Amino acid sequence: MTSPAFDISSLHAFYANGGTVASIIEAVFARIAEVRDPGIFLHLAGKESLLEQATALGAFNPSVKPLWGIPFAVKDNIDVAGMPTTAACPDYAYMPDIDATVVRLLKEAGALVIGKTNLDQFATGLVGVRTPYPVPRNAMDADLVPGGSSSGSAVATAQGIVSFALGTDTAGSGRIPAGLNNIVGMKPSLGALSTNGVIPACRTLDCVSIFALTVNDVWRVFEVAARRDATDAYSKTIPADGFGQTPPVLTIGVPAKADRLFFGDAVMEMAYDVALQMLTNLGHRLVEVPFGDFYKVANLLYEGAWVAERYAAVKDFFDTNEASFHPVTRKIYGGAKQLSAADAFRGLYALQDLKQKVAPLIASVDLFCVPTAPTHYTRADLDAEPIRENSRLGTYTNFVNLLDMCGIAVPTGTRSDGRPASITLLAPSGRDGLTTSLARDIHRGSGLTLGATGWLQPITKDTSFVDDVGLIDIAVVGAHLSGMPLNQQLLALDGRFLRKAQTSDCYRLYVLPGQMPAKPGLLRVPQATGGQIDVEIWQMTPAAFGQFVAAIPSPLGIGTLYLADGTSAKGFLAEATAITDATDITNYGGWRNYVAATT
Amino acid sequence: MTSPAFDISSLHAFYANGGTVASIIEAVFARIAEVRDPGIFLHLAGKESLLEQATALGAFNPSVKPLWGIPFAVKDNIDVAGMPTTAACPDYAYMPDIDATVVRLLKEAGALVIGKTNLDQFATGLVGVRTPYPVPRNAMDADLVPGGSSSGSAVATAQGIVSFALGTDTAGSGRIPAGLNNIVGMKPSLGALSTNGVIPACRTLDCVSIFALTVNDVWRVFEVAARRDATDAYSKTIPADGFGQTPPVLTIGVPAKADRLFFGDAVMEMAYDVALQMLTNLGHRLVEVPFGDFYKVANLLYEGAWVAERYAAVKDFFDTNEASFHPVTRKIYGGAKQLSAADAFRGLYALQDLKQKVAPLIASVDLFCVPTAPTHYTRADLDAEPIRENSRLGTYTNFVNLLDMCGIAVPTGTRSDGRPASITLLAPSGRDGLTTSLARDIHRGSGLTLGATGWLQPITKDTSFVDDVGLIDIAVVGAHLSGMPLNQQLLALDGRFLRKAQTSDCYRLYVLPGQMPAKPGLLRVPQATGGQIDVEIWQMTPAAFGQFVAAIPSPLGIGTLYLADGTSAKGFLAEATAITDATDITNYGGWRNYVAATT
Repeated sequence: MTSPAFDISSLHAFYANGGTVASIIEAVFARIAEVRDPGIFLHLAGKESLLEQATALGAFNPSVKPLWGIPFAVKDNIDVAGMPTTAACPDYAYMPDIDATVVRLLKEAGALVIGKTNLDQFATGLVGVRTPYPVPRNAMDADLVPGGSSSGSAVATAQGIVSFALGTDTAGSGRIPAGLNNIVGMKPSLGALSTNGVIPACRTLDCVSIFALTVNDVWRVFEVAARRDATDAYSKTIPADGFGQTPPVLTIGVPAKADRLFFGDAVMEMAYDVALQMLTNLGHRLVEVPFGDFYKVANLLYEGAWVAERYAAVKDFFDTNEASFHPVTRKIYGGAKQLSAADAFRGLYALQDLKQKVAPLIASVDLFCVPTAPTHYTRADLDAEPIRENSRLGTYTNFVNLLDMCGIAVPTGTRSDGRPASITLLAPSGRDGLTTSLARDIHRGSGLTLGATGWLQPITKDTSFVDDVGLIDIAVVGAHLSGMPLNQQLLALDGRFLRKAQTSDCYRLYVLPGQMPAKPGLLRVPQATGGQIDVEIWQMTPAAFGQFVAAIPSPLGIGTLYLADGTSAKGFLAEATAITDATDITNYGGWRNYVAATT
Repeated sequence: MTSPAFDISSLHAFYANGGTVASIIEAVFARIAEVRDPGIFLHLAGKESLLEQATALGAFNPSVKPLWGIPFAVKDNIDVAGMPTTAACPDYAYMPDIDATVVRLLKEAGALVIGKTNLDQFATGLVGVRTPYPVPRNAMDADLVPGGSSSGSAVATAQGIVSFALGTDTAGSGRIPAGLNNIVGMKPSLGALSTNGVIPACRTLDCVSIFALTVNDVWRVFEVAARRDATDAYSKTIPADGFGQTPPVLTIGVPAKADRLFFGDAVMEMAYDVALQMLTNLGHRLVEVPFGDFYKVANLLYEGAWVAERYAAVKDFFDTNEASFHPVTRKIYGGAKQLSAADAFRGLYALQDLKQKVAPLIASVDLFCVPTAPTHYTRADLDAEPIRENSRLGTYTNFVNLLDMCGIAVPTGTRSDGRPASITLLAPSGRDGLTTSLARDIHRGSGLTLGATGWLQPITKDTSFVDDVGLIDIAVVGAHLSGMPLNQQLLALDGRFLRKAQTSDCYRLYVLPGQMPAKPGLLRVPQATGGQIDVEIWQMTPAAFGQFVAAIPSPLGIGTLYLADGTSAKGFLAEATAITDATDITNYGGWRNYVAATT
């Protein structure tokens, strides 16, 4: 039996058909041997230990253990009990007794840790070359840097050695290496995944990130891992919801043309334009947003306060073992030693200033679409410019955690020169479901194979996922129609027009007597004794809908409206008593026609 | 014509009846002369200038200028154009050209600045004695410290020199002096009032506070002043809403008995118990909450990070003019000079740790009621222990801004020894309306006169205020009644039972055919042709209500129900078509009676 693709659906189909975990463990090690990249893993699990764990899983039961038999890798700044944690700094290494919270949750869900992966030392860097160990090879093109800091995790996933891998992300470490290796990289909202058992970079900005071959897979892992953890002071309750069908028309912010930065890489710019065209084709609306202040936020990350925070995280070790650091990392950390508390607050104030400036920009869109990285760099480029090129890679990532946004990097295609293209979707904290839903549409639309494996994207049923983002559909019939006197109420509540529709033929429409502005009333009658009445379907949040319904005056109310297309929606109904002396205008087919004909 | 009381209602009644601002300005200066306290004002407006401003106000028009002709005082760390700002440090003084944003808003609303008031230097202190100027006298008892840091503003208000005064509050400076001078002190949610034009103490924690003689008055000022300000990076949109009728049953957290701290002041403890009894008498539910972690948060304020933040605010001046500082203030600030950026982050982490610990406690109640101060201190006490007694005064205030809560200090009575008693209500950011509503109930219940003036609390119509906290009333008729099969839906949405009621006699009740669980349907009929049907009124947030309505299956919907008591509420109605073959059970008077009679 040949090994299946390693996306979770394919592996679970394999197990459901009698495939064994033992054979997948064999396939993992065969794949490691085949890839021959000594830079990916800093520690590998023993095969015997994995086989024991496989036995302990019991019978295949994905409804109880949603990650049953799924191999994964863990960035080596995250603790796995019994495996050394090094942060890619051998002198710093220690042996943890217990798993980091996220690792524990994933193991409990049936996943198997294959090994610990290489990184830019102490997770400081976006390049993947700041390590005393061999540098992991970019899975798509060995001349290119693999991206970092979660280099090994991204490459292990892209090479099909594991189904998914954990990274961390402070400046972009969960997105850049995904973008450079043709895989999906989700950087959840801060606090969604516990950082207990993770070596801090900037504690106020750190998060654990997820690499996988498909968008469905990052979401499956996120669903398991996103749990509030009382042992992590920065943990939050971020519900794993809202993943499923993407709302039909999203307003998507993109950097204004004048603010685009590709550092001369016209091919990357072209690839980005193609990705934006995909979004337009999906029916979404692009809005250019000035990006100058986002770049100013990004610049704060390696100035003052947050470099001091990195230094603070390893202060005792750095003060006594400076020579143990990678030269570039040492230079960065050393610069923070003399910073005062006043400097730290200056940084916090500068950030707050910029937060206020970008808040209206962020509020003006549903989410943002930016290039994951502005360009590709070769390892030779990095040798020549180890800090500048690293910093350029972070153009579209460095501001994100400072602004408490969530993000997901998703492949969009292959550039004309064969290098991978990727965009990142960004949204305010808590909208992980929305960004992930749209990322899935994009990945499917790309038709790409997975990572460097050649595996096709699996065909999956999405029915196991929530099908909407929690918005409520409401059918309006009269004065709330677009352009009518009360339509403003819907807009004021951030209601969004979804589509035109018609009711089933079980309604009659009347002019309600004594209403200002004039309003119709819809009354249900036996099937086929009414007409199909024109309505508009709008969408609102539950809170907005609640306020809206509360404000509807008698004799109107909100009930269930049956539509001609067989669906139903909440919608306006009139009380029958109000109809007694009312004019029947059913034959107009709708309020708009009636108004046009009579005024 | 004798001068009226200076609460805003009384002054506006005076103006409405032809009284002049000129006569009130005369009364202000007469009152200043009568009080003879040289410690209150550091700068007084010229009478001529005030008379000119009075003329410029035009005719009395409180609907356009809600603070028309109202005299107020401004703490001398807040800029008023043309008056020196000193922060009670003469060498630091400067002459601002423009008003602080809040001052400008209040002037635009018709209020008149009488002068700038004394304070604990640089707003560091809760005592009011850390000033190189004469110490303001406590308005109730000259032996006692006035409280600070907003000492002059509180005393000016308590003495009836002004209707209200602005203070600031970082550690409790807007609450302690209110509590010690028998007036109301509101410390709004952080960011509600702009701090533009305010000398920072801790920029991340500072807010402008409001002292007034009555709770209605602090709210009137808050309504004018609470505006988002793009020039203040920490400004937020905090709507001035939710003030009015207090919800009938609030869950109010109080420090667990074992955690109470009164430092031996049994009289203050007794006064606090009396205040709690008032809350119980008002129908609210008290819950004891462990307070150890709140005290730990409080301790952070004068350790490390936030002292460094105070120092950072005046670093250049301190580094060159240390001798210009008050000896106590100098000692505190000097201790922060050597703190590193790493120390600052350590403080932030410690706070975050404690925030996580207290979050469930805060979430378990609607608001908290704590003593404003644990005890009174005399000026002699402070001479003996200038730092310890100051810090004890902050027992119930120092944690509040660190936890981003809003608060209001309100007088509750006069202690057996004649000293004032006060409690402070605290709630998460944004609940200013709720705390203020309850504060009004308490102040009215106390029957106290205002400040040190002997003026009675005015009798006011509350109709100019929002009458609820934004909850929506919903009348349930059938399976959602308490104890019925679908009542759980209301509870799951945090719905709250409000009261029993009956509909007007324009409804008939039917058993809806084919429903599981069994449900009735209410149908409106002409007045007096139906019955008065028993309903229950529940309350929900708009978001919960929205979700609830969205889930109601056809043929039921939500419309307006007219109640027998002349009010109305949102409530369940059935579509008339569904009633065709239904059994009329109107004569049972309600679903509960019908169910009882037939099962």
